[in-house]
Amino acid sequence: MKKFGLIMIYLMWSLSVAWAGDEASAVTSNKTAIDLVQSHADYVWTLVAAVFVFFMQAGFAMVEAGFTRAKNAVNIMMKNLMDFSMGSIVYWAVGFGLMFGVSKTGFFGTSGFFLSDFKVGGDPWVLAFWMFQVVFAATAATIVSGAMAERTKFSGYLLYSIFITGLIYPVFGSWAWGSLFNGSGWLEGLGFIDFAGSTVVHSVGGWAALAGAIVLGPRLGKYTKEGKVKPILGHNIPLAAIGVFILWLGWFGFNPGSTTAASKDIAMIFVNTNLSAAAGAIIAMLVSWIKFGKPEVGMSLNGALAGLVGITAGCANVTPTSSIVIGAIAGIIVVFSVLFFDKIKIDDPVGAISVHGVCGAWGTLAAGIFNMGGMSLKIMSVQLIGIVSCFVWTFPLAYLLFKLIDVTIGLRVSREEEMEGLDATEHGGNAYPDFTTINHGTPGILSGPGNPNHDPVPSYASGKLMKQI
Amino acid sequence: MKKFGLIMIYLMWSLSVAWAGDEASAVTSNKTAIDLVQSHADYVWTLVAAVFVFFMQAGFAMVEAGFTRAKNAVNIMMKNLMDFSMGSIVYWAVGFGLMFGVSKTGFFGTSGFFLSDFKVGGDPWVLAFWMFQVVFAATAATIVSGAMAERTKFSGYLLYSIFITGLIYPVFGSWAWGSLFNGSGWLEGLGFIDFAGSTVVHSVGGWAALAGAIVLGPRLGKYTKEGKVKPILGHNIPLAAIGVFILWLGWFGFNPGSTTAASKDIAMIFVNTNLSAAAGAIIAMLVSWIKFGKPEVGMSLNGALAGLVGITAGCANVTPTSSIVIGAIAGIIVVFSVLFFDKIKIDDPVGAISVHGVCGAWGTLAAGIFNMGGMSLKIMSVQLIGIVSCFVWTFPLAYLLFKLIDVTIGLRVSREEEMEGLDATEHGGNAYPDFTTINHGTPGILSGPGNPNHDPVPSYASGKLMKQI
Amino acid sequence: MKKFGLIMIYLMWSLSVAWAGDEASAVTSNKTAIDLVQSHADYVWTLVAAVFVFFMQAGFAMVEAGFTRAKNAVNIMMKNLMDFSMGSIVYWAVGFGLMFGVSKTGFFGTSGFFLSDFKVGGDPWVLAFWMFQVVFAATAATIVSGAMAERTKFSGYLLYSIFITGLIYPVFGSWAWGSLFNGSGWLEGLGFIDFAGSTVVHSVGGWAALAGAIVLGPRLGKYTKEGKVKPILGHNIPLAAIGVFILWLGWFGFNPGSTTAASKDIAMIFVNTNLSAAAGAIIAMLVSWIKFGKPEVGMSLNGALAGLVGITAGCANVTPTSSIVIGAIAGIIVVFSVLFFDKIKIDDPVGAISVHGVCGAWGTLAAGIFNMGGMSLKIMSVQLIGIVSCFVWTFPLAYLLFKLIDVTIGLRVSREEEMEGLDATEHGGNAYPDFTTINHGTPGILSGPGNPNHDPVPSYASGKLMKQI
Repeated sequence: MKKFGLIMIYLMWSLSVAWAGDEASAVTSNKTAIDLVQSHADYVWTLVAAVFVFFMQAGFAMVEAGFTRAKNAVNIMMKNLMDFSMGSIVYWAVGFGLMFGVSKTGFFGTSGFFLSDFKVGGDPWVLAFWMFQVVFAATAATIVSGAMAERTKFSGYLLYSIFITGLIYPVFGSWAWGSLFNGSGWLEGLGFIDFAGSTVVHSVGGWAALAGAIVLGPRLGKYTKEGKVKPILGHNIPLAAIGVFILWLGWFGFNPGSTTAASKDIAMIFVNTNLSAAAGAIIAMLVSWIKFGKPEVGMSLNGALAGLVGITAGCANVTPTSSIVIGAIAGIIVVFSVLFFDKIKIDDPVGAISVHGVCGAWGTLAAGIFNMGGMSLKIMSVQLIGIVSCFVWTFPLAYLLFKLIDVTIGLRVSREEEMEGLDATEHGGNAYPDFTTINHGTPGILSGPGNPNHDPVPSYASGKLMKQI
Repeated sequence: MKKFGLIMIYLMWSLSVAWAGDEASAVTSNKTAIDLVQSHADYVWTLVAAVFVFFMQAGFAMVEAGFTRAKNAVNIMMKNLMDFSMGSIVYWAVGFGLMFGVSKTGFFGTSGFFLSDFKVGGDPWVLAFWMFQVVFAATAATIVSGAMAERTKFSGYLLYSIFITGLIYPVFGSWAWGSLFNGSGWLEGLGFIDFAGSTVVHSVGGWAALAGAIVLGPRLGKYTKEGKVKPILGHNIPLAAIGVFILWLGWFGFNPGSTTAASKDIAMIFVNTNLSAAAGAIIAMLVSWIKFGKPEVGMSLNGALAGLVGITAGCANVTPTSSIVIGAIAGIIVVFSVLFFDKIKIDDPVGAISVHGVCGAWGTLAAGIFNMGGMSLKIMSVQLIGIVSCFVWTFPLAYLLFKLIDVTIGLRVSREEEMEGLDATEHGGNAYPDFTTINHGTPGILSGPGNPNHDPVPSYASGKLMKQI
Repeated sequence: MKKFGLIMIYLMWSLSVAWAGDEASAVTSNKTAIDLVQSHADYVWTLVAAVFVFFMQAGFAMVEAGFTRAKNAVNIMMKNLMDFSMGSIVYWAVGFGLMFGVSKTGFFGTSGFFLSDFKVGGDPWVLAFWMFQVVFAATAATIVSGAMAERTKFSGYLLYSIFITGLIYPVFGSWAWGSLFNGSGWLEGLGFIDFAGSTVVHSVGGWAALAGAIVLGPRLGKYTKEGKVKPILGHNIPLAAIGVFILWLGWFGFNPGSTTAASKDIAMIFVNTNLSAAAGAIIAMLVSWIKFGKPEVGMSLNGALAGLVGITAGCANVTPTSSIVIGAIAGIIVVFSVLFFDKIKIDDPVGAISVHGVCGAWGTLAAGIFNMGGMSLKIMSVQLIGIVSCFVWTFPLAYLLFKLIDVTIGLRVSREEEMEGLDATEHGGNAYPDFTTINHGTPGILSGPGNPNHDPVPSYASGKLMKQI
């Protein structure tokens, strides 16, 4: 009887333990399942954010085309299509590996070229991460395009675009954002704060743009011999404005997407991004109103972009109220910076150097100043080191690159080509063949309705060329 | 032995209970983890939806610019940029608190100004919710912009835009959508159905637009002395059409995003939104075809918007089939409403009063009529109370506001400024400097190629102004 | 005592079992909760992807309008608005049921018409799935629009658009993508690989476009009597370029969204989609550069689209490296295909037959050739069967449809209407009333500034018509 009792007890115990065991594994498998669902949400968020950032390519194309002349609009579309297309291939082959591959030195990565880290059947996170990063890489190249608009040879553009996406941007990126795998960048190691790339993306683009604008020289007719600025007007302000709305939208992927995780943190980043852009637009408008007597559209639009660039570094570690201050200051800076570069005769048709270079530096400083965790001399020093090292790496290298292109295949089109417009001379086309346009702003060319100076027939279909087919 | 047996039993029991206890807490922590992942999905969905709604700003800008003249296109871009920018700051400071703060009376909120409810390290849901709401608030102001296009002073615009986003919209909003925290709105308490804002957003915008259009009066040359309507043509129909596509896209955030949760409910809201828009476009096209002999593009585009506004209130509580009926009726209403307002000489360049005001009211009624849970006299009464209270709150207050602006800083530009175009006179610019344009539709001004009436140089860069720099 | 002991044991056991039971059910309910959260993520991803695909409507409208003349731009907007609007209603009524309803034969579905499968309170997945599918269905119709631009009667367009979305597309779709409910398509049963629709969507659209272009004949003045190609230039290349960026964006919904699930699989699909598009753009540009002496914008843009169409079938089962090869080959194919169709005098204003029909076939082949699981004679045979059956189903049926429309209500506008432009004759409007345009490219019509050949007043507001109101 006692034996029976003990056996019973043992059986009952075994049973309950077995059940508990089953449950334990069920609980563990639930934990795994929860992690899996979270990771699915991470993939969705990161890739949807990548879509928003991708759309910035269209935004940049519209801003650049809108702020420049009709005779160069096809060229601008080609540049923006190609810097993303070539950038995608180059970043797949080289850039991503340099930026996020295993980094032993902290100065560049040495693995992951050609997406070789991705094994079929393996973890595809590297692919999601690559997709988010490639749209960033292309942004850096596109920024440069704006400052060099209306006078750069297309072949020269393609070449420098490859070097920026394949070398200049990813190497600096590896310093600040380290490796996806082993190791980390030296700037990251110091505690550099640049959450979404005020310095990493925008200042790199801005300083390369500065080098390009200097090497190229100003557009014909922009500065008179007496030292006056002769404005060259954009041809489609609504296009530029819609472009800015699209860029603002894209920044809702750029900044909160930089979490690369579906988390609650994205909320504050959204709010900060929006408030800074709003403050930048308002303040730049007011400054232009005070300074020029009228609320100027180009300054207001660039003010929004300045606010967006300004909040990019600190979007995850400053408060919404600080964001407004950061954006407002960016809105002041951008107006004076645009005027400054015009004064020293560096011709930047869209204001890219001011918006991305200068406000990128401001945003990086601001991320330290308004840091929620407190500002310290150490933090500010590191922020300064980051800003300076970005300039020291990017500007001379880009300058050298442009000079090399200039003396080899040539960086700038001829005087005649520039006057006629790059659309006709570089692409054999015309952006608006149905409309009469005024070829204003360039000396020595007939102004008036119609632009009879080029064959309006796209090369692929022109009679002469069709014979070859 | 017996003691040993009992101790053994106790130990075994303890062990199994302890295991169970561990598991219990593991199960509970799994539950918490599941809730967390769900909340991450909620954040992602709500904020992605906010991005789509944000994009509506670009859509509204394009529709308004496309349907109006080239000489005012810069002004329209500035207005749309600024109502969102100023709206963001005002809604952060005041609007959100009035609308979603603690509401003791049911008539307005009294907390949450300056996002003060958000504590660093606290729950950031208020930030995600604010982000979704701020893009709604800006919509209300933008609607008004369309009806008052081509003749409103920019400074007057900025002023009323602040009052709509900071006072008129959020107070009515608090009646219908109550508080995020404690308390609820009085309309909400009655059971008012307005899921995504046919009344709260669109009718508020529409009735304020009506007040504005009345106070402003029609554009010069719109109505002849003999009482004829002299159409003033839009300058870029493709731009307007793309704008409508973007608004349609934005509504996929506006309506299903109003769940502010990642749930299965969004599917039906998507389908309803789409079917109503489609039906609205088709029916408005057919009505215009029958009435005017040709399928008219402006009416067709406004038909799609009418369908979208019409389904906004009931999108979550009517069936897909009902949505088609609701959209179709909205498509009929909008055509006759546009003609009606033209007949009584209220000049609404883009049809905003009809699309948002009138179809907003229809949508609110329709949410009651086609309610899946059944229609009742009580429901219909409440819907009517909501519609009427919206008009009674919005129209007189907006009218007063516009009158006050009119007698103080001025609401309308001068006759000369209107003829020359707001771009030149208000902003010192020109939307399309490269193209020759015809300044049609205004009496007393030279029509013909070219528009030599203003300085085509943007103020910031014009010779005179550059000297100041 | 013993009894007491046994009772105690029993009680303790009961208790621990009861606890375990509670926990078992808690664990199970956690499992259910996890599945629910995953399904919420699936809904969000599928519907956000649907939004991206919806946006392609705007992209197609912009590409088609940009590549054609200003005098037909309103007509193109109307067509794109209406094929989506009518398509939505038709696909709700008939198309979805034919494509995804219960399929006993494998040749078409027989349930689910009017979304009748959806019960209020039931599983709304069918609604989410419908929403994702309706944006695909509309794509097929829109593709046809491009090839038939600038000469098709609007009423004829509406009619064929209904048949494509309601019959031709969904029946073929049911062969390849089977049923959402019971049964599957016969092609699917063979193992046909077409993940997101290189054949199902793009080739169906492309072959219908081919039929349409043949029945319609070329635009006036496109081919001279001596057999020369006389190019008809598009009126807004930046619009077309932005359209291509939007289509590229839309494809990030089209391809990865075809998982209709939030999963890790979407990462590789994103990367493949992007790399193939990039390669297509680059290679088409290079081919145009070599062939015509200049990097041509139309070919480059179509190259990107060719790469996107090419990767659509295999995006989920080829490697990133293969994607580059697939896109590059598509980029070569599209240039020669466009030239080929021009040579045989089939006038396709936007290159839709080449981009969607020919590159759709290539993509379907490529999905077999580069299949990660290995290529086999069986796979290639099935891919070929799919490609051929698509042509055999679509082309003759579409040809018959267009012929029937042609002999009944008429498919092509008159010579005079075509010369004046469809905007004026079909819609009583004008896309750009503020701008002087050149009516080039059509023989027998005055070329020069201004287009005085039509009433610039939109019908709804013209004096004559207003009297009827």
